[in-house]
Amino acid sequence: MSTPPPRERGPSPSERVFDDVCGHVRRTAVLASVESLLGWDERTMMPARAAAYRAEQSAALAALAHRLRTDPAHGDRLAELAAGPLARAGSPAQRATIALLNKDFARQARVPERLVEAIARTCVEAQQAWVTGRAESSWSTVEPWLRQVFDLKRELAACQAPDQDLYDTLLDEYEPGGRWREIASLFAQLRSEIVPLVQACEGAARRPDDALLRRGYPVSDQKRFVREVAVRIGFDFDRGRLDTTDHPFCSTMGPEDCRITTRWDERFLPTALFGVLHEAGHGLYEQGLPTEWFGLPPGEAASLGVHESQSRLWENLVGRSPAFWEWCFPLARAAFPHALDGCSPAEVQRCLMAVRPSLIRVEADEVTYNLHIMMRFDLERAVVHGELSVADLPDAWNERFARDFGFRPPSAAEGVLQDIHWCAGLIGYFPTYTLGNMFAAQLMAAAGRDLPELDRDVAHGRFGGLLAWLRDRVHRHGRLYSPAELVARATGAPVSERWLVESLRARYGAAHGCV
Amino acid sequence: MSTPPPRERGPSPSERVFDDVCGHVRRTAVLASVESLLGWDERTMMPARAAAYRAEQSAALAALAHRLRTDPAHGDRLAELAAGPLARAGSPAQRATIALLNKDFARQARVPERLVEAIARTCVEAQQAWVTGRAESSWSTVEPWLRQVFDLKRELAACQAPDQDLYDTLLDEYEPGGRWREIASLFAQLRSEIVPLVQACEGAARRPDDALLRRGYPVSDQKRFVREVAVRIGFDFDRGRLDTTDHPFCSTMGPEDCRITTRWDERFLPTALFGVLHEAGHGLYEQGLPTEWFGLPPGEAASLGVHESQSRLWENLVGRSPAFWEWCFPLARAAFPHALDGCSPAEVQRCLMAVRPSLIRVEADEVTYNLHIMMRFDLERAVVHGELSVADLPDAWNERFARDFGFRPPSAAEGVLQDIHWCAGLIGYFPTYTLGNMFAAQLMAAAGRDLPELDRDVAHGRFGGLLAWLRDRVHRHGRLYSPAELVARATGAPVSERWLVESLRARYGAAHGCV
Repeated sequence: MSTPPPRERGPSPSERVFDDVCGHVRRTAVLASVESLLGWDERTMMPARAAAYRAEQSAALAALAHRLRTDPAHGDRLAELAAGPLARAGSPAQRATIALLNKDFARQARVPERLVEAIARTCVEAQQAWVTGRAESSWSTVEPWLRQVFDLKRELAACQAPDQDLYDTLLDEYEPGGRWREIASLFAQLRSEIVPLVQACEGAARRPDDALLRRGYPVSDQKRFVREVAVRIGFDFDRGRLDTTDHPFCSTMGPEDCRITTRWDERFLPTALFGVLHEAGHGLYEQGLPTEWFGLPPGEAASLGVHESQSRLWENLVGRSPAFWEWCFPLARAAFPHALDGCSPAEVQRCLMAVRPSLIRVEADEVTYNLHIMMRFDLERAVVHGELSVADLPDAWNERFARDFGFRPPSAAEGVLQDIHWCAGLIGYFPTYTLGNMFAAQLMAAAGRDLPELDRDVAHGRFGGLLAWLRDRVHRHGRLYSPAELVARATGAPVSERWLVESLRARYGAAHGCV
Repeated sequence: MSTPPPRERGPSPSERVFDDVCGHVRRTAVLASVESLLGWDERTMMPARAAAYRAEQSAALAALAHRLRTDPAHGDRLAELAAGPLARAGSPAQRATIALLNKDFARQARVPERLVEAIARTCVEAQQAWVTGRAESSWSTVEPWLRQVFDLKRELAACQAPDQDLYDTLLDEYEPGGRWREIASLFAQLRSEIVPLVQACEGAARRPDDALLRRGYPVSDQKRFVREVAVRIGFDFDRGRLDTTDHPFCSTMGPEDCRITTRWDERFLPTALFGVLHEAGHGLYEQGLPTEWFGLPPGEAASLGVHESQSRLWENLVGRSPAFWEWCFPLARAAFPHALDGCSPAEVQRCLMAVRPSLIRVEADEVTYNLHIMMRFDLERAVVHGELSVADLPDAWNERFARDFGFRPPSAAEGVLQDIHWCAGLIGYFPTYTLGNMFAAQLMAAAGRDLPELDRDVAHGRFGGLLAWLRDRVHRHGRLYSPAELVARATGAPVSERWLVESLRARYGAAHGCV
């Protein structure tokens, strides 16, 4: 993705409209980026009592941005472009920009302001109910809100795309062009392989044990250590920051301003280390998008699934590999001499390979994690399609969990109430996590073929080759291709679950001696 | 200042217009507060390369806020209010709000957008020229920019108030209702007392020496120590923060969100300690303004001079007092046992009383500081009034400096180029610093009369009585009274320089054994 070549003549009328449209979208992006800063500050820096006014500040910015996005004159210019010569004969970036901006505008302009406001308001209250409901493990506190959220999101989908499957429309927000039937079919294959792999790992004679990582790791030493790791894999601190939050995230507030966060656990090194590898993976993607197109489709991420592929690739496929620990171990031992003295790189790496069915998604290992996701995907899809009522969610959750994990959640807090997503209106979001794992495995397999020295490079702390490959195959293309197209072009093969299956089986099966 | 009592009947038409106007101003304040956050983030957190886009974000917010502020419909409603019954018979807060909003609107609406933009653009470039010019001590780099800035600001003043003295109009931005002739007369009195005091201190046989404060003070210990001091004097960290910057400041980004900064010098304890006392003094004022009126005159500071009185009161009149060090010394010794072991509170306090004519305003002691300010005030006023050309500023500076301080600046960088204010367009700003010192001394004298236990309270670390007095006499009144009126009401006497003269003479004369 590069900027269009300098024009040798003056702009045509159509190019002039294109420039106007881009200017308008860039102005919207400026406001949206300020909203991002408000959100980042709220979660990292803001004093406790400033929350109420922060909500007003965010709402004011959101309203201004929404007004720009749905400005009818903007819609007219977009329609003119779509019917004009650039939509057919422009550069690839121009054609994609025209098509995607028209699609975005149509989705947003079809939604009555009343519904936008009702969703925003309801989700704020639903999330408050969730905080209480989860703390008290009280399903009845959350249920009425969840019913409203699902109803409103179904209404939203019906407005946005009257002729399309409701769940696909919701999914489209996070995974453009995604289709639930295709995802369900990929997931079914994946599940049929993962369930026996988990059982095999559970029955293995020698199972990895992470006691080594539960010794004392002073937080101040962790801070220096993980920052050095982030720098080494390529995260640019001249264009980003690392801060502390309870729930780690990555947020972009400008073309040269991408900020990640992590949490710290003095008694468990992986919390911060893998948190930072994950968020820095997101950050590398953001820092690799074409800055000159910031706020426009060629400068935006392709999808949440593709985004998650970048974070999971660095977290799991790089960060848990023996080669990585060959390089990283001396650094870690220098940072934590008390905890790691007398250990070997292989011992530490083996600690990271434990597989154990557990209740909480965000604490799950790399293998069982996908079972958590597939379950949520099936349940939310069934509710959106009217096959399952919100009232029946807890039972459906517990039954499915027992089937996949072999035991029932002891409480709603550890079961159906554990995630904030549904109360936050994030319906159609969960499958992007496992799609990300699949894309990551498929990309890593292709990178391994293209870069025969990859393992040796990683073992020497040389990550530039892999990053350059990702920049070239993924980052620089922005949102120009659909996720499936992007992954297929990057890897030379259609999207498939088989790379993830192979990767999990090879790595976790080997660590448990059961392949 | 309290909120209006609940209405027993429905709002009158005039009250309805008042509510509309307040709503509009509050919406402007939301955008302005987001601009504040952008500025704070830029100076404390932002990654290096994000500066260019940050300028776009700030400009976009500023433009939106300016559009709201100068909205003609808003002006019509304000005019309607000014002619209506509330302007005569409303509550004091309503009357002041109507009068002040009309004044603000008139000033802003009279200025053509072209001039607003020219000033903004020129000041950005002039500040860049200043950075280079000061680094190279090159007056000729700065001179043409300074000429433009002074010309533009004169033009601005002529637009804003065609019938008023130009310098008074510029001053009004920072010190509402201030008149240069009155200030000049106060300053002349003050100068006639300070010059001999400085000479007496210089000739004193035993002069305070601050070597004690130039030992090793580890920054991490300073951070804990100054935070504890800030909490103790009343700065509320649930509604604020303390961060690190090269140039300390205090900035408010919401009714419950006031953030201060400081810098740290491992070899000089006063840098951070008095920096924080100063900024926390500003912060206490901001935190004491009526939150329910945030963004409206009853919720705004009265002037920069009054603001500075709060910072200087805590920094100098509290923080350098023997009583303060009786309380603070054990805390300091516990924080810095190596540096302070074997010292006494009196020794430390005496270190803080050194008077020494020096080149740089921001490093000056409490006494000579005012000579720096009075000189800048006379020079900038003369330029605005056309009595002195910008080209002649360096010579005029050096001559005046030699007269007041007894030696000539060796370079422009240490003379006329040392401050960014003029290049930043801050003309009429300097006198507020010394006005602040005068107000502070006058307020502290009155507080001392009203609170007979004040010294004993401070010696025990009890600052609540003084803070409550300031809240009652100053903070809660917002911008309802002019600075002179506010100080006179708070202290029972018209504004005068004599409290500052007495305070400096008593404290510094005594420390030098020359009273």
